[in-house]
Amino acid sequence: MTTNSPDNKKPLVGILMGSPSDAEIMKKASATLESLGVECEVLVRSAHRTPDEAVEYARTAKERGLQVLIAGAGMAAHLAGVVAAYTPLPVIGVPVASGALGGQDALYATVQMPPGTPVATVAINGAQNAGYLAAKIIALSDEALAERLEAARQERRQKVLNTVV
Amino acid sequence: MTTNSPDNKKPLVGILMGSPSDAEIMKKASATLESLGVECEVLVRSAHRTPDEAVEYARTAKERGLQVLIAGAGMAAHLAGVVAAYTPLPVIGVPVASGALGGQDALYATVQMPPGTPVATVAINGAQNAGYLAAKIIALSDEALAERLEAARQERRQKVLNTVV
Amino acid sequence: MTTNSPDNKKPLVGILMGSPSDAEIMKKASATLESLGVECEVLVRSAHRTPDEAVEYARTAKERGLQVLIAGAGMAAHLAGVVAAYTPLPVIGVPVASGALGGQDALYATVQMPPGTPVATVAINGAQNAGYLAAKIIALSDEALAERLEAARQERRQKVLNTVV
Amino acid sequence: MTTNSPDNKKPLVGILMGSPSDAEIMKKASATLESLGVECEVLVRSAHRTPDEAVEYARTAKERGLQVLIAGAGMAAHLAGVVAAYTPLPVIGVPVASGALGGQDALYATVQMPPGTPVATVAINGAQNAGYLAAKIIALSDEALAERLEAARQERRQKVLNTVV
Amino acid sequence: MTTNSPDNKKPLVGILMGSPSDAEIMKKASATLESLGVECEVLVRSAHRTPDEAVEYARTAKERGLQVLIAGAGMAAHLAGVVAAYTPLPVIGVPVASGALGGQDALYATVQMPPGTPVATVAINGAQNAGYLAAKIIALSDEALAERLEAARQERRQKVLNTVV
Amino acid sequence: MTTNSPDNKKPLVGILMGSPSDAEIMKKASATLESLGVECEVLVRSAHRTPDEAVEYARTAKERGLQVLIAGAGMAAHLAGVVAAYTPLPVIGVPVASGALGGQDALYATVQMPPGTPVATVAINGAQNAGYLAAKIIALSDEALAERLEAARQERRQKVLNTVV
Amino acid sequence: MTTNSPDNKKPLVGILMGSPSDAEIMKKASATLESLGVECEVLVRSAHRTPDEAVEYARTAKERGLQVLIAGAGMAAHLAGVVAAYTPLPVIGVPVASGALGGQDALYATVQMPPGTPVATVAINGAQNAGYLAAKIIALSDEALAERLEAARQERRQKVLNTVV
Amino acid sequence: MTTNSPDNKKPLVGILMGSPSDAEIMKKASATLESLGVECEVLVRSAHRTPDEAVEYARTAKERGLQVLIAGAGMAAHLAGVVAAYTPLPVIGVPVASGALGGQDALYATVQMPPGTPVATVAINGAQNAGYLAAKIIALSDEALAERLEAARQERRQKVLNTVV
Repeated sequence: MTTNSPDNKKPLVGILMGSPSDAEIMKKASATLESLGVECEVLVRSAHRTPDEAVEYARTAKERGLQVLIAGAGMAAHLAGVVAAYTPLPVIGVPVASGALGGQDALYATVQMPPGTPVATVAINGAQNAGYLAAKIIALSDEALAERLEAARQERRQKVLNTVV
Repeated sequence: MTTNSPDNKKPLVGILMGSPSDAEIMKKASATLESLGVECEVLVRSAHRTPDEAVEYARTAKERGLQVLIAGAGMAAHLAGVVAAYTPLPVIGVPVASGALGGQDALYATVQMPPGTPVATVAINGAQNAGYLAAKIIALSDEALAERLEAARQERRQKVLNTVV
Repeated sequence: MTTNSPDNKKPLVGILMGSPSDAEIMKKASATLESLGVECEVLVRSAHRTPDEAVEYARTAKERGLQVLIAGAGMAAHLAGVVAAYTPLPVIGVPVASGALGGQDALYATVQMPPGTPVATVAINGAQNAGYLAAKIIALSDEALAERLEAARQERRQKVLNTVV
Repeated sequence: MTTNSPDNKKPLVGILMGSPSDAEIMKKASATLESLGVECEVLVRSAHRTPDEAVEYARTAKERGLQVLIAGAGMAAHLAGVVAAYTPLPVIGVPVASGALGGQDALYATVQMPPGTPVATVAINGAQNAGYLAAKIIALSDEALAERLEAARQERRQKVLNTVV
Repeated sequence: MTTNSPDNKKPLVGILMGSPSDAEIMKKASATLESLGVECEVLVRSAHRTPDEAVEYARTAKERGLQVLIAGAGMAAHLAGVVAAYTPLPVIGVPVASGALGGQDALYATVQMPPGTPVATVAINGAQNAGYLAAKIIALSDEALAERLEAARQERRQKVLNTVV
Repeated sequence: MTTNSPDNKKPLVGILMGSPSDAEIMKKASATLESLGVECEVLVRSAHRTPDEAVEYARTAKERGLQVLIAGAGMAAHLAGVVAAYTPLPVIGVPVASGALGGQDALYATVQMPPGTPVATVAINGAQNAGYLAAKIIALSDEALAERLEAARQERRQKVLNTVV
Repeated sequence: MTTNSPDNKKPLVGILMGSPSDAEIMKKASATLESLGVECEVLVRSAHRTPDEAVEYARTAKERGLQVLIAGAGMAAHLAGVVAAYTPLPVIGVPVASGALGGQDALYATVQMPPGTPVATVAINGAQNAGYLAAKIIALSDEALAERLEAARQERRQKVLNTVV
Repeated sequence: MTTNSPDNKKPLVGILMGSPSDAEIMKKASATLESLGVECEVLVRSAHRTPDEAVEYARTAKERGLQVLIAGAGMAAHLAGVVAAYTPLPVIGVPVASGALGGQDALYATVQMPPGTPVATVAINGAQNAGYLAAKIIALSDEALAERLEAARQERRQKVLNTVV
């Protein structure tokens, strides 16, 4: 398996978004992964405008060494589901709030997957947690990452305890 | 263009459903089309379990003489959107009520399509109207069908007027 | 049937909206159709303030050469349904987000039509897709339009592939 | 104005429903009115299947001596709104629960009317209250009815006070 | 019965609101009534902060010559229901959008009244229609008002027909 | 203050419900209190059918020795709010699921109270927790009850730990 | 029991919030309590980032003399429930509107508690009422506070009656 | 790392549920894992009734060799979030439909987690997919399991293709 040492530049996580307008939300996923020293790659691949490229990306993800895919999309968010249909890798879905329904549509379209094709769904606009979840999965076989995750957890904890309101 | 005379058995409408459990609802689409003398074919093609076959069906639908596609699915209903990404034909989506959210999830996942890939969505479980809508589209170039549609409309009207409550 | 060559100015699509306040959304439908070389006409016709004129428009639409009607309205959006009750043409409904419920009311009032009177519903504020859907329907008997639609699809695809995030 | 004495058989309230399947709910409106000695008439008139007849009914309601109209319908419930567009009389709307959304769709389609065409909406399936509301309106010029309403109110009150749980 | 001639200053409609913050919405009710020449009075009476005064207002409304009450409130909007429990007059409820739920809470709390105590509910923030509805009720015994209502309807119609988009 | 010893029959908690049909749910509140040795009384008092009696009950509750009131109602559930407007005692509201909206309406109408008149809302149909909450409040000045509550908590805990699935 | 005289600085109410971003809403709880002369303490304790500290706070709250806990949190708001699992004291939950769902998620996560662990839930962002509710509970054994509460009620009442709109 | 060969009985997945009433849904998770040859253990641990035991389970899960935790709960479903706060392992949440809101409450309470503590949420009642997702994660370091997953995928595909409707 590809090791995940900081100087290894081969990405372990592929981050897809359905539209460039999702980038502002989805960059929190890559920023989180980078802060944890996990290499990732980021692409726009639409389930409806570039379906062949989205499928091709999913189909070849494992052989290219990726371990987790993150897919963010808004409205009738099909991207995570389409990707999950073509890869044996775990797929994390980020429902992005856009349009009139505030992400409720994207949440349903991402999480309500039928049996056999799970999408690990995080909160609406929860790209940061998509990054943490991907890292937790990769950390199962990367103890150094597990330690960096634990350090980040302690930092969050300390930050709360230091808060004065 | 393929004519639509009653003795022409080549289907003009392709009806897909994502799961055999959608059949009870979706048979109302085929029954409606048959009552109007429009040939159709019915298949189970899942966006997540048989994505290649669903894509292949959509990609070749026009060249095989189909004019309208109807896709019914429940929960995170991606089928109509996936099909619409691969065909120039108009695609009608039927959100099917299944699971805990009563079809609200399927409605959002079907109707909230992003720009460029429309799905003509009918009511939750509205397979009968999917049939009528397909027939109305085909009737644009089939005056005999238009007359049968008008006769059906008059019949519905008369049935209401004859009702005593 | 009326041909749809670029120099033919007779409209093939009639676009109605229930209120002048819907114009900002609905102009995306006409802009889309114009970009595809499909003639359309745009009117304000309210199901509640000008019911007779809305009905008359629908009743005479087919004989005036129109092939598809698009109706956009907000709140208790009855316009598409009222129009669909009076025309054999396919009717596309655009739920417009206005008022306190953000278009959820308009979505339900547009899509949940009873059997016999379908409205081909697109996303909330999805007027652009109403234009594409109308064009897809008309393209069934206009191969040149089908080619322009395909070119537009390729353009959308290329634009996504060229995106760098 | 038409008096409302018990022996006057000319109806003061017209009760419309969009479908025979609404009859079970809507008969509570007529039963309530009858219990209060208010004459009413009950018809099935669909906004989509018999639009002309629904419009004609509304247009002539006032001249025929009716004072209040009640309209009950389910799903994309346009009936009350269509009727209200054609009559100067107050129109009471009853959203009927049917289909997958449990009346939420009918509630929105009935109550969210745009300015100028109000529909006095009661609860989902609240046909009994539609009857009471119509009676309260008519009682403004019929003191005997006002007294019967007051007696009914006292009876409801006493029934609650007598309850042992 | 109190006549409703323009020079008669005795109010026929009482407009209550639950909070001064509802005034911006609720003034559309009084403005509508004034434009139709119907006298009204406007007060803040909270179901929770001034329950005795709200009850007293409702209890004495009829004897003071009022014919219709309008009550607007937000959130858990109890005002219309509390008022309706104490008056034989028809009560119109206006759900006001305030707080985090955008009026959905006020809609439910206003419209979902139990049998025997109807509230004639209009759209969220639909105070204008509350005015029209009150006028339609009063016009049942005031033909001059009926004519002013008809003129207003024609004006709305003409305004739509004159719109160029 | 009234003590809460087991042989003291003076009720400390008053349980109101808006309708006899709420009794099946609301009896869980009294059963819970009885299991904890807290005396309570149970009445049907409707905010709309017996408003005077509901108000009188609330107004005199404190002087009669009650410490907590529980009010359960369905649909546009005004009872808890009306009661809370008239008593200095803490009021617990139980939204009861009835009618087409499954308790969502009752939840909003109970919990979304405006500033100054809080209702301590529990889950839809959560009458059992209304009992526990009332007991927790009373236990602030009744250590024996606090001990019975703790014993009940231990029992719930043990029951879970003993479960084999 | 700890008395609640103004010069007694030992807090009776503990106010927790899940994130510093909740402070703007939650300070209304402390401000309300302070205006009523009830001492309180305010801390940030996250159910997910500082679970041990949240639990420890809850576990020791009673022995430290606190009588009521208030917990405010947004999104999947677990804080009130977690706290309630560890304290015999009454716990008041404030669902805070944050993120894409406008507090609907926090409302459900706070109010829909299972049997045995009640959370006294107030309105979304209703921190002011959390303060009033806590005060009402404490006033059961503090007649001076009861009088201050009554004075505040009279003030709210008078303010409404003095409003001119 | 613990290998996952079929004859290794040490569980890799821990399945928790908040209540015995969740067992009927949650057994689909264990059945799915067993069908894939992944050892798992199943316990009832309530976030509110046995919080210490739930926390202890989560805290020690990794050191006991578990790789993925699955937590299913209904209503205000805090279990997955509480568990996720105490373990570095990936946590999968199953919102269970129970009570009046049909799982909508459990979905929000499970998926809307704040940054830093992700819960990989599957569909309401989607315990089967929780099993598949856990297996996909474990398969990242177990190629034999990856092959069994692929075989299961092919079986699902073939079953759809063999369906005749």
